[in-house]
Amino acid sequence: MKSKTLKIIPLGGLGEVGKNMTVYEYDGQILIVDAGMMFPNNNMIGIDYIIPDFEYVKQHANQVVGILITHGHEDHIGAISYLLDFVDARVYGTPLTLGLIKSKLNRRKPLNEPKLQTLNAGETIQIGPFRVKSFHVSHSMPDCVGYGIETPAGLIVQTGDYKFDHTPVDGWPTDYATLADFAQRGVLALLSDSTNAVNPGWTPSEKVIEDAFNKTFAQAKGRIIIATFASLISRVQQAYDCAVRFGRKVAFGGTSMLDNMAIAQELGYVKFDPSVIVPIEVALTMPASKVVLVVTGSQGEPLSILGRLANGTNKKFSITQGDTVIVSSYPIPGNEESVYHAINKLMERGAEVIYGAIAPVHVSGHPSQEEIKLLLHLTRPRYLIPVHGELRMLRMQAQLAREVGMKENDIAIVENGRVIEFSNGQMKLGERIPGGYVFVDGSIVGGINRETIQEREQLSNDGVLVIDLLLSPKDIKDWDLRVRSRGFVSEEDEADLLKALKLRVRKLMISPTNNLQKELENAARNCVYDETRRQPVIFATVAYTS
Amino acid sequence: MKSKTLKIIPLGGLGEVGKNMTVYEYDGQILIVDAGMMFPNNNMIGIDYIIPDFEYVKQHANQVVGILITHGHEDHIGAISYLLDFVDARVYGTPLTLGLIKSKLNRRKPLNEPKLQTLNAGETIQIGPFRVKSFHVSHSMPDCVGYGIETPAGLIVQTGDYKFDHTPVDGWPTDYATLADFAQRGVLALLSDSTNAVNPGWTPSEKVIEDAFNKTFAQAKGRIIIATFASLISRVQQAYDCAVRFGRKVAFGGTSMLDNMAIAQELGYVKFDPSVIVPIEVALTMPASKVVLVVTGSQGEPLSILGRLANGTNKKFSITQGDTVIVSSYPIPGNEESVYHAINKLMERGAEVIYGAIAPVHVSGHPSQEEIKLLLHLTRPRYLIPVHGELRMLRMQAQLAREVGMKENDIAIVENGRVIEFSNGQMKLGERIPGGYVFVDGSIVGGINRETIQEREQLSNDGVLVIDLLLSPKDIKDWDLRVRSRGFVSEEDEADLLKALKLRVRKLMISPTNNLQKELENAARNCVYDETRRQPVIFATVAYTS
Repeated sequence: MKSKTLKIIPLGGLGEVGKNMTVYEYDGQILIVDAGMMFPNNNMIGIDYIIPDFEYVKQHANQVVGILITHGHEDHIGAISYLLDFVDARVYGTPLTLGLIKSKLNRRKPLNEPKLQTLNAGETIQIGPFRVKSFHVSHSMPDCVGYGIETPAGLIVQTGDYKFDHTPVDGWPTDYATLADFAQRGVLALLSDSTNAVNPGWTPSEKVIEDAFNKTFAQAKGRIIIATFASLISRVQQAYDCAVRFGRKVAFGGTSMLDNMAIAQELGYVKFDPSVIVPIEVALTMPASKVVLVVTGSQGEPLSILGRLANGTNKKFSITQGDTVIVSSYPIPGNEESVYHAINKLMERGAEVIYGAIAPVHVSGHPSQEEIKLLLHLTRPRYLIPVHGELRMLRMQAQLAREVGMKENDIAIVENGRVIEFSNGQMKLGERIPGGYVFVDGSIVGGINRETIQEREQLSNDGVLVIDLLLSPKDIKDWDLRVRSRGFVSEEDEADLLKALKLRVRKLMISPTNNLQKELENAARNCVYDETRRQPVIFATVAYTS
Repeated sequence: MKSKTLKIIPLGGLGEVGKNMTVYEYDGQILIVDAGMMFPNNNMIGIDYIIPDFEYVKQHANQVVGILITHGHEDHIGAISYLLDFVDARVYGTPLTLGLIKSKLNRRKPLNEPKLQTLNAGETIQIGPFRVKSFHVSHSMPDCVGYGIETPAGLIVQTGDYKFDHTPVDGWPTDYATLADFAQRGVLALLSDSTNAVNPGWTPSEKVIEDAFNKTFAQAKGRIIIATFASLISRVQQAYDCAVRFGRKVAFGGTSMLDNMAIAQELGYVKFDPSVIVPIEVALTMPASKVVLVVTGSQGEPLSILGRLANGTNKKFSITQGDTVIVSSYPIPGNEESVYHAINKLMERGAEVIYGAIAPVHVSGHPSQEEIKLLLHLTRPRYLIPVHGELRMLRMQAQLAREVGMKENDIAIVENGRVIEFSNGQMKLGERIPGGYVFVDGSIVGGINRETIQEREQLSNDGVLVIDLLLSPKDIKDWDLRVRSRGFVSEEDEADLLKALKLRVRKLMISPTNNLQKELENAARNCVYDETRRQPVIFATVAYTS
């Protein structure tokens, strides 16, 4: 019997590092892998975050037979709540992943009641026509998996985020055996992580952080404050272990840090002795040399704990001379400025700050070039689809694949929304379905478009000027002008501008036309440009005094 | 005779990489070194650029005896035009530096007629009580110098931007002999470049770029487009030399590139054979394998040539399959996103893109850690004032100085505007004078303050909503409401919002108070938040229909 066509449709993660989502479709049944969100670029002004364009899935919502999640990072789980607004399918993942998803779905409840089903690393399950084998990968948090997805059209392997860490904190390396077993069975296509494809060599093991922490702890005389992502659960374990070695107590700060630690502890993914953990309020009353505070905000976000400490706006405590701050993360691309700003400000306030340039207090959770080559040799795929990365990273993974012997035509570098079809063991590119960005801002999902963002850019460049021309109903020559502005000029300059504007309006009012509002706007635009060389957004109102 | 006090006041370059400026004051006479500008951070919304706070110099304008410039980069010369608006002193620099300044002053003429005087590397001049010795340093452009400034209070050495490049493109290394001679005479204080103080090792020589260029040229079959800073004059010479080796013609693109090349060629700082240089219009008609285009825009700025090529909005030519683009620069901190965006877009359009992660097509012009240590050993200063860097860089230079034996108390890490006093061979910190930012936006200098920028941030987050409540003069119950918005919601959503707003206003108009405008604003704010969870800037107007 001739096998039917398998379609793979990446809806996120291509051309970007974030909002991963892949659709598998076979015989009219759809399996989804991950549903992540991403944070906006600097030029997506005022947007809270971005989710994949679900339009295709929405139109085929009844055909969705399951949702597989690789791990609990926001760029893989952040859009599940929106997906479950219209898809009523089971969500599969490891215990930690589901624990984090549960907590997330409590904060924003989807329209459909979530049905979460544990699928442990190493387990196999049949979901519609898809026979799914979950396999463990090491990354920067515990209990991450990739999936081998067997269909009548062939076996597809999707790694999720992974690295080949030989000495991970939890002692559980990537499952080489299953990857090699896939190769034995014959891998039709491999979808694998490109994030670090431009980095030569091998990503260092999480183990190296232990030495850097030890060295810093040995030198620190005062408080130690470690800022990291709340999702780097094993990093927190490392901080805890080091605290125990140096006889310090540990306190957590930041809602997501407290939440995640509660979940990870309940599920057994971290080992904390209750006598070592203290509430932050208690830690603050203890001798400085006896405490470690583990907090969020490693990207310097102004409203995070580290951001507030940097800006001097944290309520519970402030940076004091003698504090040592460890920034245990890399800046996410686009965040460099805010991270370094925070580091400088913390130094200004008297802290010793240890960050990437000073000591290896962070390692990546993604594979570098030699690891990518190893994966290719382990799995020996017929076709390669580099995912999870900007175009330059996808291309670099393709180049690495060519270096280990793959043919250019067997590698598909595609964009989100491109349908990739497999039939009779052959890959071919299909149509393009919507695969763009959906902006989430406040409670509005998708109501924000590029135009709105462009308008915000104009507003942010030169501000806004509101002009009210108030006419007397009795005498057209008797009028008054009022201006209000925001983000444009100082009050003083506004007063000067009002004078100049009145001169122009006086001319206008000699023979007013019946489109006075338009004329007023034009006159104001010209006047403002002449006076200031700037182009604020202008709103003019023409009305009457009573 | 007891020496008087020498004051050194950094007005720029401390806590930032940019807008360098230092004031030397002795016996009531002021000498200025550099007057640079800097580009705004991502959070300084809508600002064109930033210049130092000149207030102190303005108040003592008559005491200024001279302005020394170290080299022609914008962060050292960009504010000269504003400085010469109120200071009428001679400007000293090397021929290339003055050539670039002249071109700059033609674009914005200062109020005082500029008086430029050549001071070649190695020459000595007496300016008031300051005996100034200019010494050559290698950097990323030709003809850069530092200054040894001898005063009755002692000898101060200010490096400007420098590196110890043993094989610079122009064959002119940093003047070790003069630095060592300063050490013989006894250096009271050293002010030196901290930009790369967090980089271990030694900054690679410009020479390494030759190999990377050769390799890329050898592989390129089509056009080669090299994007770099117009000020990296020796980089352009390298591109030219490589083009000659590979039998290609060279064309320049971008106003500043054309201007700088004209100046550099006229003054003999680049060696171009006229038969190799062609206008860009001619280059575009030649076989692709025979041309190299050297253009501006290496930071991915949307309006630069490279930015326009990336976005497909360049008029004269577009990227085509087979083009090779070399991005010969690093992203300036904060520009990473736009640079990588441009790289991805160029790839999308079919270009092969060679950038830092692929090959060493750029090297820095600033000293790394081992060079900083070498400078300290060469000059043996009594005191060190790290300049030109964020606080974390200044601190790192201080740490390096301690590693080579300097005492913590002999190193002054200060902020812009801090007066540093030297008398009887001792350094002590004095008062703090204004040393902040002056924002330049359009033709307004300094009229923009932090508050305005905060307002712009608010506007850019959620946009603006303008509400006109128009009352009938005859009947208070007869009113109409009009809304206009920008950067807030789509037109559709605006119509929905108007309905909701009308309901609120109806309630308001049951018993209107005499502060109807305030009430309208509050009601609108609540209504908008309830409906959208967002907080645009709201302007309300209450007036009458005629």
